Amino acid sequence: MSGLFSPGPAGSAAEEATSDLAFLQALLDAEAALTRAQAAVGLAPGEAASAVTRAASDASRFDARSLALRAREGGNPVIPLVADLTAAVPAHAAPYVHRGATSQDILDTALMLLCARTLDLLLADLARTEGALARLAARHRDTVMPGRTLTQHAVPTTFGLKAAGWRSLVLDARDRVAGARGTLPAQLGGAAGTLAVFGVYGMDGLYGGEGRRVVDEAGGSLVTAYARELGLAEPLLPWHALRTPVADLAAALAFTAGALGKAAADVLTLSRTEIAELSEGAGGGSSAMPHKANPVRATLIAAAARRAPALAATLHGSLAAEDERPAGAWHAEWEPLRDLLRLTGGAARDAAEMAEDLRVHPQAMRAHLDLTGGLIVSERLAAELTPLLGRARAQRLLTDAARRVHAEGRTLAQVLAEEPGLKDVDLTELTDPARYTGSAATLTDRALERR
Amino acid sequence: MSGLFSPGPAGSAAEEATSDLAFLQALLDAEAALTRAQAAVGLAPGEAASAVTRAASDASRFDARSLALRAREGGNPVIPLVADLTAAVPAHAAPYVHRGATSQDILDTALMLLCARTLDLLLADLARTEGALARLAARHRDTVMPGRTLTQHAVPTTFGLKAAGWRSLVLDARDRVAGARGTLPAQLGGAAGTLAVFGVYGMDGLYGGEGRRVVDEAGGSLVTAYARELGLAEPLLPWHALRTPVADLAAALAFTAGALGKAAADVLTLSRTEIAELSEGAGGGSSAMPHKANPVRATLIAAAARRAPALAATLHGSLAAEDERPAGAWHAEWEPLRDLLRLTGGAARDAAEMAEDLRVHPQAMRAHLDLTGGLIVSERLAAELTPLLGRARAQRLLTDAARRVHAEGRTLAQVLAEEPGLKDVDLTELTDPARYTGSAATLTDRALERR
Amino acid sequence: MSGLFSPGPAGSAAEEATSDLAFLQALLDAEAALTRAQAAVGLAPGEAASAVTRAASDASRFDARSLALRAREGGNPVIPLVADLTAAVPAHAAPYVHRGATSQDILDTALMLLCARTLDLLLADLARTEGALARLAARHRDTVMPGRTLTQHAVPTTFGLKAAGWRSLVLDARDRVAGARGTLPAQLGGAAGTLAVFGVYGMDGLYGGEGRRVVDEAGGSLVTAYARELGLAEPLLPWHALRTPVADLAAALAFTAGALGKAAADVLTLSRTEIAELSEGAGGGSSAMPHKANPVRATLIAAAARRAPALAATLHGSLAAEDERPAGAWHAEWEPLRDLLRLTGGAARDAAEMAEDLRVHPQAMRAHLDLTGGLIVSERLAAELTPLLGRARAQRLLTDAARRVHAEGRTLAQVLAEEPGLKDVDLTELTDPARYTGSAATLTDRALERR
Amino acid sequence: MSGLFSPGPAGSAAEEATSDLAFLQALLDAEAALTRAQAAVGLAPGEAASAVTRAASDASRFDARSLALRAREGGNPVIPLVADLTAAVPAHAAPYVHRGATSQDILDTALMLLCARTLDLLLADLARTEGALARLAARHRDTVMPGRTLTQHAVPTTFGLKAAGWRSLVLDARDRVAGARGTLPAQLGGAAGTLAVFGVYGMDGLYGGEGRRVVDEAGGSLVTAYARELGLAEPLLPWHALRTPVADLAAALAFTAGALGKAAADVLTLSRTEIAELSEGAGGGSSAMPHKANPVRATLIAAAARRAPALAATLHGSLAAEDERPAGAWHAEWEPLRDLLRLTGGAARDAAEMAEDLRVHPQAMRAHLDLTGGLIVSERLAAELTPLLGRARAQRLLTDAARRVHAEGRTLAQVLAEEPGLKDVDLTELTDPARYTGSAATLTDRALERR
Repeated sequence: MSGLFSPGPAGSAAEEATSDLAFLQALLDAEAALTRAQAAVGLAPGEAASAVTRAASDASRFDARSLALRAREGGNPVIPLVADLTAAVPAHAAPYVHRGATSQDILDTALMLLCARTLDLLLADLARTEGALARLAARHRDTVMPGRTLTQHAVPTTFGLKAAGWRSLVLDARDRVAGARGTLPAQLGGAAGTLAVFGVYGMDGLYGGEGRRVVDEAGGSLVTAYARELGLAEPLLPWHALRTPVADLAAALAFTAGALGKAAADVLTLSRTEIAELSEGAGGGSSAMPHKANPVRATLIAAAARRAPALAATLHGSLAAEDERPAGAWHAEWEPLRDLLRLTGGAARDAAEMAEDLRVHPQAMRAHLDLTGGLIVSERLAAELTPLLGRARAQRLLTDAARRVHAEGRTLAQVLAEEPGLKDVDLTELTDPARYTGSAATLTDRALERR
Repeated sequence: MSGLFSPGPAGSAAEEATSDLAFLQALLDAEAALTRAQAAVGLAPGEAASAVTRAASDASRFDARSLALRAREGGNPVIPLVADLTAAVPAHAAPYVHRGATSQDILDTALMLLCARTLDLLLADLARTEGALARLAARHRDTVMPGRTLTQHAVPTTFGLKAAGWRSLVLDARDRVAGARGTLPAQLGGAAGTLAVFGVYGMDGLYGGEGRRVVDEAGGSLVTAYARELGLAEPLLPWHALRTPVADLAAALAFTAGALGKAAADVLTLSRTEIAELSEGAGGGSSAMPHKANPVRATLIAAAARRAPALAATLHGSLAAEDERPAGAWHAEWEPLRDLLRLTGGAARDAAEMAEDLRVHPQAMRAHLDLTGGLIVSERLAAELTPLLGRARAQRLLTDAARRVHAEGRTLAQVLAEEPGLKDVDLTELTDPARYTGSAATLTDRALERR
Repeated sequence: MSGLFSPGPAGSAAEEATSDLAFLQALLDAEAALTRAQAAVGLAPGEAASAVTRAASDASRFDARSLALRAREGGNPVIPLVADLTAAVPAHAAPYVHRGATSQDILDTALMLLCARTLDLLLADLARTEGALARLAARHRDTVMPGRTLTQHAVPTTFGLKAAGWRSLVLDARDRVAGARGTLPAQLGGAAGTLAVFGVYGMDGLYGGEGRRVVDEAGGSLVTAYARELGLAEPLLPWHALRTPVADLAAALAFTAGALGKAAADVLTLSRTEIAELSEGAGGGSSAMPHKANPVRATLIAAAARRAPALAATLHGSLAAEDERPAGAWHAEWEPLRDLLRLTGGAARDAAEMAEDLRVHPQAMRAHLDLTGGLIVSERLAAELTPLLGRARAQRLLTDAARRVHAEGRTLAQVLAEEPGLKDVDLTELTDPARYTGSAATLTDRALERR
Repeated sequence: MSGLFSPGPAGSAAEEATSDLAFLQALLDAEAALTRAQAAVGLAPGEAASAVTRAASDASRFDARSLALRAREGGNPVIPLVADLTAAVPAHAAPYVHRGATSQDILDTALMLLCARTLDLLLADLARTEGALARLAARHRDTVMPGRTLTQHAVPTTFGLKAAGWRSLVLDARDRVAGARGTLPAQLGGAAGTLAVFGVYGMDGLYGGEGRRVVDEAGGSLVTAYARELGLAEPLLPWHALRTPVADLAAALAFTAGALGKAAADVLTLSRTEIAELSEGAGGGSSAMPHKANPVRATLIAAAARRAPALAATLHGSLAAEDERPAGAWHAEWEPLRDLLRLTGGAARDAAEMAEDLRVHPQAMRAHLDLTGGLIVSERLAAELTPLLGRARAQRLLTDAARRVHAEGRTLAQVLAEEPGLKDVDLTELTDPARYTGSAATLTDRALERR
């Protein structure tokens, strides 16, 4: 995996945290935690736990390619991994490798470990992005620019409000990702989710049993101990076929990609050669055209935002999983979940860089406010003139004026100045876009209070 | 809209709550609330608010088809609706219709009203479903059945645990839907989200201003008053292009469809002619085959679960919306959101009926436990025999026994009874599937404690 | 169904052709054709066929809402429809209603009839669109405009080439839609796809049999006759669970929406207030802002293009359908297929209107070519100067010149004129964007030769 | 990339053909072909073409990871690759590396090369699958089994017809893949699709020009020569933003995954422990349960079928691409296209193995036909008895008999034998499921005639 197909995540912390090697390490971590948990509750000797932990401590000692190829026989890589891990421990520890678990216990747990590690990195980059956007919003609280709807100038707004809006989406993403992060559960159910074999080993997997007497001071069940070893949450039920955690991740990650995608969509638009109100600090070059400074960060974020919803859809589709462990719905989750982690992780890094290096061009924004000859504040004029002229006459006047602005290339102020009924009105002020930003500053302040 | 294409939602409360007429009423409700809110904060006369509210009180007075056709000109139905509503109020109230709003303010608010009303119905049907599943789980706490993984018998489980698992997904859905329900926001931003024109009318849209002196005792801003009139939440920012509420709905509804789809997938499997461990109380008939009792409720739920993820993907895709109001991303939301409401509303009704009427056939479950001649508890045997025979010999013995069970058509107990080393072992008990359900009952109890 | 949620298709021929009433008529047409086909091959009396055809000739005589509600029992509307149709024919014809068919035979056939009728309308609108684009491309064969890549000016192109590219996508869509249209099959398999009951009636459903002697001159099988009555293709096999026709429709329609979406994306971009190289002839107005002329046709097309891929994904997902007729995968097809027909039908109408009314502003295009001070032809300069100055020196010169163009606000020609080595070079010509359109005209001509 | 996340494609030819190294080689092949094509038409010295071809002949000489990391700057890996390739050729050849091309020319062409190579492999595995299914269908032309609809027994069918249906889908997939394979185009448009810079080099990129005189005997244009060097089709237009080829691939590959998914869905169902009419020759084992023989091939195919539609949706979504080269839509294609190639390539291999090794258990099929006590042929009875008893009486009799079969545990033949009006009827024959397979054999024969 060189990253050649995916410049977005390439070289990011998320890419590394979801590499095949990281996955293999997570699988090994899950196996080691299982043995340690059994030791903690008296189902396995402490030496076995130490031995398994030691053997599992370095994924690079295992042959990932061989595991992948042997995974085809049973449909998942845990089966061959158990064989290789068992071979790597001393004979006394061998019986305690993978004891009582089913493949899915280990694989699901490993995926949750990958998620935990990657979501932490994602949250850090979201925090960087949020911080940079907060600074932009504060700095440009009063920087007036055209508000655009359906691609056309509508009324003025401020870049501060725009950046504050981007930030509020990033905070929404942070809240959803942090929510998912906080509840990532360990998986332990045994062959069909009943933990039955642990009873044979002398303990009810949930609450102890005969083995309870030898449990450590903290007491508690095997599942509790397992989750504690992993730093994951203890699930209410084995969730082999109850895929809430995966669906929640899908939603949180698709949301994040889309939230960042909103800012990217705006940066792409506002970076256009004709608009140029924003530019990426370090726009990407072109081999043939030295003058180009492409908004590459925004482009890569936009690409991630295009891909994430479909990946999340696959994960949502896997909720409808038959039986105690399904044939296909589960297997369809692994790569899309990894891809979502990578894409959002990469996009968050790109968003942080984009936000931190974004160049804002207030003079271009200001200049564009005049592109419509003052019509960008026609809404204001209609509201202001109605009390003076009556509703019907005000509308007629404005419609006519709008036509003349287009036809004669004059400004709205100039055209309206010819209207006798308005000779006492300060048309210059009334048609000044910079004085028609409404609650933009207040909204920006309010949005920035959110932490 | 007869429902001819969609037997799932047909005739459901969700279908009615999302009808074109219901949508039109919600649009009118949003307009009326806007005028009342302006009256509440002193921006409009009380009589105008009363008049608009009266005119907007009955959607059937408006011509929905004409509105739809005229919607094409501007791309949404609010523009012609404002014209028709204005024509329907007395002249004194006309200036206060839609005053200061943009089309999206009204349409988004109306969609949130539809969601509020439909999610309440959905929550009621989820509660019905949850209750019926709780009863099933309690009643069948100890009803043993085969646990199945990758389509094959694995180890025994109980139907109680299975039903408790379905219920836990329904509760997860309830939590997500209730969460989304609780935060549905009103929309009010004006032409480009700055609320600017309200300043001209004498008030900062957010916090009062000059108009503040005439605000009612409760005080507060126009947006606060508007949200209060609607029974919706007050948003932190106008969210014309910050689509968190829609994305959250997408996630909650796709989750719900999938959660119900899990139970449906199991019912479909377990209703198969060869399995027949479950049957729908009132299975659907066939015109040509009188013996058929099709699992129709499960079928319709399964169909909804197949459709929901893609609809949610479209909504997630609309997060990446350019500008202050986007050209296309917003318009792409309306029907998928409605479809999701309908599909999940219909599926929840079907799930409630399916759960309430489900027939459980414990004797079929029990009979199937013997289909593998006792091999369904081979995991237990391996664990039990290892201390007696050593790990290697125990495994060899079991592998050989499994082969003989298949080849000779005898049971595992019969085959193992020939093994001299096991003559003191109570093989009948050890191979009794009903005695190998592990923590199933405990898990069921624990899951049922959740409310 | 007022169309209030969907201004794109509202009022279009595709909307009408896929209405609930049209679907009901298609269901009735399928039933009538089935009886006529049986009469044609001697399995039913001619009077029965006439009677059924008469009773089925007007869908408005049937109660669509009642059918939809009763559809819930068996999961599809054909079961109650058969009851109502049987009640509507004279007693002598009753036994020949729906004889030998399964619900899916009728419903699938009706869907194919809907598709046939709607695709014909779609093809007509694609032809209109293609024609208008051909005229645009021919008229603007030499209208120079900036070529844009990653949002930035790259090198010049022509609007003719752009329009020719849009047209080539429309022709690709036409070919795919026409391909799907031409192979829409009738469905007739009976209860499980074996046509078994027709043997009891005296005929092998495929090839005749005893009943063959009374077959009309044309001879042939029941399925042949059925397809002929319907104007649909005869399938090789019953396709209850072999969904190639539906998947092909999904692909053709998603392609069409995307192909039109490409043109819409460009129109949206080029209509932006700052760019204004294109405008929709009748842009949509805004209630509050009289100056706005929104690109509404393009917006609605863009919305359709956002939705179609997910709908197609649901249909592709239904390929994996279990058994002879699946529980859910089939039911999940109906609405998405209808939605795709409507969305693409509406988008094609919008595209035709957009293309026919599109206003092109060559002077704006020309003006924008100068926005980069000549750097838009830097690629040419690099190629031209390399033989004169050597590759390294040429590149150095251009990179430096590009910097100075930005910093000093001069044109590339002015900056380069200071270079002694270029004093004999006609820099005005070399930096004229209009002289650097390469093969654009030739490509346009070539593309327009395609019919 | 070890394949640890994806046991489906792991170790398959498709996996290797789409590896990062294979992609890098394809990028190099595209660069080399470009130089050779220029040499062929007189735009470059033959020695340069030879030198570039030599330098580009072994991807392992380049550092893929470094390229991926440097790809981030410009958003694609071609920019750094050109630098590295230029450094790897002798100085005389350096000016001819990537001459006149834009990054997307090379990357799109490389993707098409990957597709060409992988689709050939895919077609081979589809042919293997088709052959094995043809043999199964022929061998089991008359093997009777229950036809199942909505999970319930309907009427009998044959395994031959089922296998023939699977095969017909595989042939449909083959036709669609072969169609896409045959039209994979080279990409060559230059910076914005006008081929402009080649004019400076002395040749119209399409048709020659001054350089034409030195073109080789075959003559023709640069684009023609380029396509010929690559073994790809010559496009009508540069397709940087006209993504028909990618959309067609999406449709063909999603179809293929779904077509194979149909067979997998049936194998999963029919392999269930209670049904066991089919089993995979080499079912996957379980670590804990020696008796399990999981249908792993079908499971992995089913997982691929779940993922493909969403990946195709992303590609369909990229049709709506703005400008001459889009910012994001293009970048969003690379990985999904690769994933689709891999998933379908892996699924086709699995399908070939599944089909070749499938074990059919006719005796289980036959036994299940009796599960409903003869009601599986109730359709036949209704048809046969109507002439004898009249329609109403026949239906009443059968409905009553069906009830009694369920209640009394007797067969339909036994129950009906008590009816005096049927004493001359051979009920044993009439209720024999094996004699009610209708046109199954004829349909199978007909389907097998298709090549």
